[in-house]
Amino acid sequence: MISKQALRKLSRILGPEAISTCRDVLDHYGTDATKLAYSPDAVAFPGHIREIADILRLANHEGFPVVPRGAGSGKSGGALPVQGGLILAMDRFDRILEIDESNHIAKVESGVITARLQEEVEKVGLFYPPDPASIHISTIGGNVAECAGGLRAVKYGVTRDYVLGLTVVLPTGNIIKTGVETAKGVVGYDLTRLLIGSEGTLAVIVGVTLRLIPKPVFTRSMMVFFKDPCTTVKAVSEIMRSKVVPTALEFMDRNCIECVRNEIGLSIPKSTGALLLIELDGDRALTRRETDTVKEICSQMGAIDFQAASTKKKRERLWEARRNVSPAVYKLKPDKVSEDVVVPRNRMADLVSYVNRLSQKYGLPMPVYGHAGDGNIHVNMMLDKKNPDELTKVDKAVRELFQKVLDMKGTLSGEHGIGITKAPYLSMEISKPAQELMIRVKKAFDPNGILNPGKIFPQRI
Amino acid sequence: MISKQALRKLSRILGPEAISTCRDVLDHYGTDATKLAYSPDAVAFPGHIREIADILRLANHEGFPVVPRGAGSGKSGGALPVQGGLILAMDRFDRILEIDESNHIAKVESGVITARLQEEVEKVGLFYPPDPASIHISTIGGNVAECAGGLRAVKYGVTRDYVLGLTVVLPTGNIIKTGVETAKGVVGYDLTRLLIGSEGTLAVIVGVTLRLIPKPVFTRSMMVFFKDPCTTVKAVSEIMRSKVVPTALEFMDRNCIECVRNEIGLSIPKSTGALLLIELDGDRALTRRETDTVKEICSQMGAIDFQAASTKKKRERLWEARRNVSPAVYKLKPDKVSEDVVVPRNRMADLVSYVNRLSQKYGLPMPVYGHAGDGNIHVNMMLDKKNPDELTKVDKAVRELFQKVLDMKGTLSGEHGIGITKAPYLSMEISKPAQELMIRVKKAFDPNGILNPGKIFPQRI
Repeated sequence: MISKQALRKLSRILGPEAISTCRDVLDHYGTDATKLAYSPDAVAFPGHIREIADILRLANHEGFPVVPRGAGSGKSGGALPVQGGLILAMDRFDRILEIDESNHIAKVESGVITARLQEEVEKVGLFYPPDPASIHISTIGGNVAECAGGLRAVKYGVTRDYVLGLTVVLPTGNIIKTGVETAKGVVGYDLTRLLIGSEGTLAVIVGVTLRLIPKPVFTRSMMVFFKDPCTTVKAVSEIMRSKVVPTALEFMDRNCIECVRNEIGLSIPKSTGALLLIELDGDRALTRRETDTVKEICSQMGAIDFQAASTKKKRERLWEARRNVSPAVYKLKPDKVSEDVVVPRNRMADLVSYVNRLSQKYGLPMPVYGHAGDGNIHVNMMLDKKNPDELTKVDKAVRELFQKVLDMKGTLSGEHGIGITKAPYLSMEISKPAQELMIRVKKAFDPNGILNPGKIFPQRI
Repeated sequence: MISKQALRKLSRILGPEAISTCRDVLDHYGTDATKLAYSPDAVAFPGHIREIADILRLANHEGFPVVPRGAGSGKSGGALPVQGGLILAMDRFDRILEIDESNHIAKVESGVITARLQEEVEKVGLFYPPDPASIHISTIGGNVAECAGGLRAVKYGVTRDYVLGLTVVLPTGNIIKTGVETAKGVVGYDLTRLLIGSEGTLAVIVGVTLRLIPKPVFTRSMMVFFKDPCTTVKAVSEIMRSKVVPTALEFMDRNCIECVRNEIGLSIPKSTGALLLIELDGDRALTRRETDTVKEICSQMGAIDFQAASTKKKRERLWEARRNVSPAVYKLKPDKVSEDVVVPRNRMADLVSYVNRLSQKYGLPMPVYGHAGDGNIHVNMMLDKKNPDELTKVDKAVRELFQKVLDMKGTLSGEHGIGITKAPYLSMEISKPAQELMIRVKKAFDPNGILNPGKIFPQRI
């Protein structure tokens, strides 16, 4: 709880118009894409880095939690105020500070919406590759905090691969810069990459320096339909073995296809059991040849139909349909528990059949889609949370799924993070000495545990 | 000092044949590429990870320093036993454990020579891009510890970009695995990237899981000669602005050219003031077109001659000549202080003229070469260390160079690290609160400061 006195101090730091305790505001900022809800004591809208530093110093003194928040589009609860306290809404840090064409670098504030940055850099022929499905909502700061991936990661990598440096406020109130504004740099420990994916628990990200690349001149998208999901993911392994690296290689099973059928805008063969949404980009002639290679492999693997998105509009429609799968699966059941597992690419067929068996065993729909090129599969366990029997079933199914994934040398999360929703399972993947080390690292940053407490680790730290 | 009793215990852990206190061995393992020399008390050659864990536990108990060492090819003194103690020579950890063709992953022990790994993965059509100039000597573990870069970083990135996970022994003796064996993963803090570039101060790297990519099918190399160095680096900026991304884009000034003239094996125009060594790779037709674009830009920028390396043998000769620049500059003076600064690409011309002025000011040769595509320039201050006047001059010149680089928003080290040689300058780039945080992180890993003490930080920690 933030004391009345502390609230008055916050109001003095921020100005009274930049802090709110209104019920509506608390409700809005107390939930996120997980649909879980907690109530913060107040929401702050700082406009200057100095204010954030002052807030954190006050929080240390008074002992209240501070939870940094981008757009609240996170899927593991990273922005939820699980222990109350203050939400630090980064909404006002929304400026693109610089796009440096000759050095291929952008400097932005952390509250910039990722899609906006992409549009701006593309205007000058540059390219910011990471594109999480939430791209039109989520912020660069949130992407950095979670190390967001997205559709193009198979060719271009994830957020981590494009961050050169950060300006952050430490939980103790110190403002520091990490990393560089150059192509390379190895001076001191790599705090930049330690902060990437730290889910808002180590520092408040205020500024981000990003590496850009030249925009690919040519792009091709197509949908390939298969009869059954296992063959489909086997085709993915074959494509990757062929040494063609598509920009995106997305998988959707029948359940998902049904949920976005109308949005896809293409005719889908009746016998379709799963599909791949494939994009290639680069040099025009090369991309055409690679498209042919990919088509040939898919044919050999038994594809029943191909449909190319011939116009930019049709292509965007396809990708929009893909981005909407996550919300669309609610058509199947009112609630979902969404997993973000990754396995080695050549184990995907085993994983997909395993999920099918799990779904039959527990009698619950488990639509599967995801970044097949990375082996990163989103398994959605659909349920009605009001039904305690279904809750118990999903609980068991999640644990079984995770064990299977780890047995396949996979990992529990490829891009959504641990937050609170996966924290109970952390110990299945991370050994006790590694967790203890991480907690010591957390204490090195945040000795009083005021920044985003209750996240990542199963124990209270 | 390691006590006699501790030496007996070490001998019991390792077996008497795997520990040495012979003068020859101590001398050999007490120096590195910096040519500085310190004497360790003993050198251990562990053969099993359990032995390393036992050694570190003993070191904590007895309080002696342990210094992990790959090939000793580091340029900042990372492997030097500056406070004596035990050298942990990783020579016996030299196995390539797995090359997984279908998932594009390699698992290796940390003592594997990087060139050997490259050869092995290329046999199956895969590619491990990082290639530090020391590639035929240096080990993967050393490359990870320093976050080695190399010639191809401009297109393919540095060691960091290819490490998926690590097996390490913590200074406390715990063995942990970090990261993943999959394309993506964000479970817990990113200890993998924190360890990369930590210069052997946070943990002993024993195993490395690496990401591989398909081997490019076609490669072209050429040398382009210019009259003066400033135009040469301006051509680099222009090439990068054209959105062609060469594999390598290396710069050499006249001093460096003279030192490796015979090794280059090509005729060099008389009026040459500097050259670019350029490599492009990828699709055959595309690479040819890009080569033409690069040539055209260089012509426009005033290139006086081009020479392509038409055969594989000639190409290798060119790159070997480039790799040999670093030792070859000793022809100019008996000693050198080698800097590894990085500036934004469009500031390279300013940097090169500044170094020229510094060289004139202090009357010492300062040959310049490096990874111009990254803005990463190796400035070599040549001197005779027996001459105290020259030592003082170089000391002043280094500090002036660093200040200039930082004023240009550059960084003190792109790939060589801080070690001991750059530690006195750390505070020029890293602020006090950031250094204090790094030291707290160090203590979270190594509470008793037994692992590679005396490195990175100017103060004794």
